[in-house]
Amino acid sequence: MSDLTTTVSRYLDIWNEADADKRAAAIAELFTADAPYIDPLAAVEGHEGFGAVVAGARDQFKGLAFELHGTVDAHHDQARFQWGLVTEPGAEPIAIGFDVLVTDAEGKIKAVYGFLDKVPAA
Amino acid sequence: MSDLTTTVSRYLDIWNEADADKRAAAIAELFTADAPYIDPLAAVEGHEGFGAVVAGARDQFKGLAFELHGTVDAHHDQARFQWGLVTEPGAEPIAIGFDVLVTDAEGKIKAVYGFLDKVPAA
Repeated sequence: MSDLTTTVSRYLDIWNEADADKRAAAIAELFTADAPYIDPLAAVEGHEGFGAVVAGARDQFKGLAFELHGTVDAHHDQARFQWGLVTEPGAEPIAIGFDVLVTDAEGKIKAVYGFLDKVPAA
Repeated sequence: MSDLTTTVSRYLDIWNEADADKRAAAIAELFTADAPYIDPLAAVEGHEGFGAVVAGARDQFKGLAFELHGTVDAHHDQARFQWGLVTEPGAEPIAIGFDVLVTDAEGKIKAVYGFLDKVPAA
């Protein structure tokens, strides 16, 4: 498993962490202090900003999990991958997103650029 | 046409510009001074770095053109899109790439994160 694949895994773990304190600690460990996180619905910077986005998504999609959808394509300090929002492991995702993660020389995430490939049906 | 779609069009025009001076002028106009350009084969920063990458690609793929493949998906200050390397307009691409462009508040490209979806056959 490459460093970037591990980073993607740890990133998705944050979205799935139910404990707010553990999420905050994991974000502080994984992200640079001022990292932008920008998807179609949110544009924030820094640990608290990203933490609030995750908390909001977890509140909106209670009981659902974010999992890697497909594989991680990584080179240099950047990775692209899809994630799926699922009701149980391996289920058909109700939403599919696409993120590019960029890391710094220490391997911390310095930016996330997110897009959506499938949005939940109304 | 959104600003970001225009930016993508101007970005692809640079790859297709045969005149090195015109390329350099267009890069200086479109990119911030220290913008990183990182794809699987190149990791550079700034106008001269990106200009050298384009010159190298144009030398390697003489007579071919880069065109938008599909549509531009943009929000906030970021866009994702595929490009195709073609022998003539609308032809089946011999290579397909995928880029995320990020712009600053003035609309200048401040980063390009590139990946490859199809590589030329040996």
